[in-house]
Amino acid sequence: MQIILLSGGSGKRLWPLSNEVRSKQFLKLLPTATDKKESMLQRVVRQIHQSNIDCSITVAAGASQKGLILNQLEKDVNIVEEPERRGTFPAIALSSAYLSLVGKCDRDEVVVVLPCDTFTVAQYYNVISEMGEAAKSDDLDLVLMGVCPNCYSTKFGYIIPEKQSNYQSNILKVQSFTEKPDHDRAKQLVESGAFWNGGVFAFKLGHIIDLLKKYVDFNTFDELVANYSKLPKISFDYEVVEKAKSIGMIPFSGLWKDLGTWKTMTEELSEDPIGNVIEGENVNNTHIINELSIPIFCSDTNNLIVAASPDGILVADKNSSEQVKGYMNKITARPMYEERLWGVYKVIDYIKFPNGYQALTKQICIKAGSHISYQIHHHRDEVWTIINGKGLLVLDGETREVKCGDVIHIKREQFHAIKGITDLYFIEVQSGDELIEEDIERYDWNWEK
Amino acid sequence: MQIILLSGGSGKRLWPLSNEVRSKQFLKLLPTATDKKESMLQRVVRQIHQSNIDCSITVAAGASQKGLILNQLEKDVNIVEEPERRGTFPAIALSSAYLSLVGKCDRDEVVVVLPCDTFTVAQYYNVISEMGEAAKSDDLDLVLMGVCPNCYSTKFGYIIPEKQSNYQSNILKVQSFTEKPDHDRAKQLVESGAFWNGGVFAFKLGHIIDLLKKYVDFNTFDELVANYSKLPKISFDYEVVEKAKSIGMIPFSGLWKDLGTWKTMTEELSEDPIGNVIEGENVNNTHIINELSIPIFCSDTNNLIVAASPDGILVADKNSSEQVKGYMNKITARPMYEERLWGVYKVIDYIKFPNGYQALTKQICIKAGSHISYQIHHHRDEVWTIINGKGLLVLDGETREVKCGDVIHIKREQFHAIKGITDLYFIEVQSGDELIEEDIERYDWNWEK
Repeated sequence: MQIILLSGGSGKRLWPLSNEVRSKQFLKLLPTATDKKESMLQRVVRQIHQSNIDCSITVAAGASQKGLILNQLEKDVNIVEEPERRGTFPAIALSSAYLSLVGKCDRDEVVVVLPCDTFTVAQYYNVISEMGEAAKSDDLDLVLMGVCPNCYSTKFGYIIPEKQSNYQSNILKVQSFTEKPDHDRAKQLVESGAFWNGGVFAFKLGHIIDLLKKYVDFNTFDELVANYSKLPKISFDYEVVEKAKSIGMIPFSGLWKDLGTWKTMTEELSEDPIGNVIEGENVNNTHIINELSIPIFCSDTNNLIVAASPDGILVADKNSSEQVKGYMNKITARPMYEERLWGVYKVIDYIKFPNGYQALTKQICIKAGSHISYQIHHHRDEVWTIINGKGLLVLDGETREVKCGDVIHIKREQFHAIKGITDLYFIEVQSGDELIEEDIERYDWNWEK
Repeated sequence: MQIILLSGGSGKRLWPLSNEVRSKQFLKLLPTATDKKESMLQRVVRQIHQSNIDCSITVAAGASQKGLILNQLEKDVNIVEEPERRGTFPAIALSSAYLSLVGKCDRDEVVVVLPCDTFTVAQYYNVISEMGEAAKSDDLDLVLMGVCPNCYSTKFGYIIPEKQSNYQSNILKVQSFTEKPDHDRAKQLVESGAFWNGGVFAFKLGHIIDLLKKYVDFNTFDELVANYSKLPKISFDYEVVEKAKSIGMIPFSGLWKDLGTWKTMTEELSEDPIGNVIEGENVNNTHIINELSIPIFCSDTNNLIVAASPDGILVADKNSSEQVKGYMNKITARPMYEERLWGVYKVIDYIKFPNGYQALTKQICIKAGSHISYQIHHHRDEVWTIINGKGLLVLDGETREVKCGDVIHIKREQFHAIKGITDLYFIEVQSGDELIEEDIERYDWNWEK
């Protein structure tokens, strides 16, 4: 069995910890049995392993997420990078093609697709396993998970099973769907035995490959990648589920939550503050998360979320924390913290002068053995002051070792790259007329020579 | 008439905006008739000028405050730097000696001493003027301000006037003092007609000079400065007020407040947030002050103070904000923002590695025409990347012009100084085993040669 995890986009409602590259599934906030915190992605992968499902895991992700995923999961999973974000059908189809062409999976191999940001319990993975078994049947195009509703939610799609449809033991046959109903309709649906659509899909690999071939003709995975933009921007629900002839559903009735807001997220966190936090008296039902190095002091607060990162500071009643999403356009857009394949950076200062000149300062860590690409910038100089570790610098084709205390001045149009021999820390001061991440031209460099 | 303003020490209860060098009187938060904010110190000096009292103003201040005071008051005032902080008697005596020896004031010149952090109204300065007049009398050693109490405060000293003592028009004769009484005694005092001691003292210059000569023999002001440590560490109240034979008091009954806590401070501020702040819905009776460049978003908060500076972030109910003082020992001590005579710096990053090596990054601005002292460090290298403006660099005795884009690498034990030709901005990366402000040896440099 193959599992595809869908790694979704930005989680603006968890600002300032999430931003356009660090989505909610990557936030290492969830308590574990040890002192270490884990992310939603790490939790889902751990739960899959603990469920003893015999499967490989493939994560379908945006290109900017690859570093984060590898940092969090090491070599546990395959990663299929979407060349661009076009919705869940192209993403699932691309991963399916990867499994078929690169993974050499058979047309009859069963695939289960699930979101990587569902907060749930072990029983969920038993249902996943049952779904995989059910999808082997030639009678069903598709098997879905039906989550037993515990309220009349208007936020979910509903699955309406055929009456008395027990097709096989625990499998119901699906009659129809209703997208996000109003409250009265939701009440009616729940009372008549409908389920929430859990966004989990099981199918045989060949079924999706056939659908995909309608849009693009390809013989290799790289060919499909090159033609990715020809696929329709459409969700798996519209393209596959609604057109399926025969759909099964297996109910799941355990804890099942979207930790997409600070309200729902903090319900699952321990009360202990995270980071450099000092609590005074009467700090009640308040969650404080501090990713900055400066301290946060709180006293006499109630039901608050206080969260600080290089992107900003949030202070809100937990019930109102969703509001922040509506104000994101007023909040400066560039991410101030990014975890990349080669390490991490955070922006520690930015200043724009009246004469238009700008300076942006970053603290950068390159992991031992990793490197940034060989590159030039057209609009900025960079000054690197190495503050810890050793590295290999390439500057205009010349390679030399650099270490703590060294200073490297890279003028615009100079070719440069750096690799960590040990974990390598430096302060980068960018200055110029235009300081954007996009001012970068990448070239090949052979690190072996 | 001479006015001496006492510039007190740290205001820990206004953390994180105040720190050990930036005391509360320097925080530019108070609303004015224009868009500009002013500090308590600026407000007091403005009010003195507007009162048309014919006087010179001398500020008695700690050495580290001189830059701040000059930046805020320009050349409006004399500044007497205390060689060390030894309490109000030595500070007032030193300023008195300055007026006598440097200012060439007569022994009969009247001096009025007042705190620079009282938040009050114009009428206060009328009383100051009356106190100056009253102090001219040879019958009185000292004239005090008696503030009419509006509650049974246990936080103030009380002045008990002689019954039916109208000595001269509005001047009462003082019978005795009671330091911070308990609530019952305070009630008794207020009901029997006692006043709060306003901490304002008027006297003839010769009176204090005579008291000072008991401790130190000096002929020049510099001689007194050199012997400052011989003066007792004692308050003016104990050394002068309690020993005075004949004390007058003039009542004052207008607005008179110590803005020493966020609770009292925010009562006088406008509701508008200060700095990079985005308010969502239901931000009620909440004051948000942000000195960081990253945004603060607040929603659904009530009666909160949210204050952020390079020193840290405070989130507290206004009524509990005083608590922070008791937790100061848990909060990292070094100031992360300082306004100096030559300009300002803020610490934008600090990291200590497991191998003990440290790096501290500052954004520094040196004002046009100002310079830092010629100096060396024993424990750190510094890398300066100039990000705006032009300056004159001295490195090991060699002078050269530097400008935006230049990088200067200063190794430990190298002599260096820099002067702004224009306003000069640079990023400084310090690295070494010990990064403290005290690792500095200053030398003379003749900028004219």
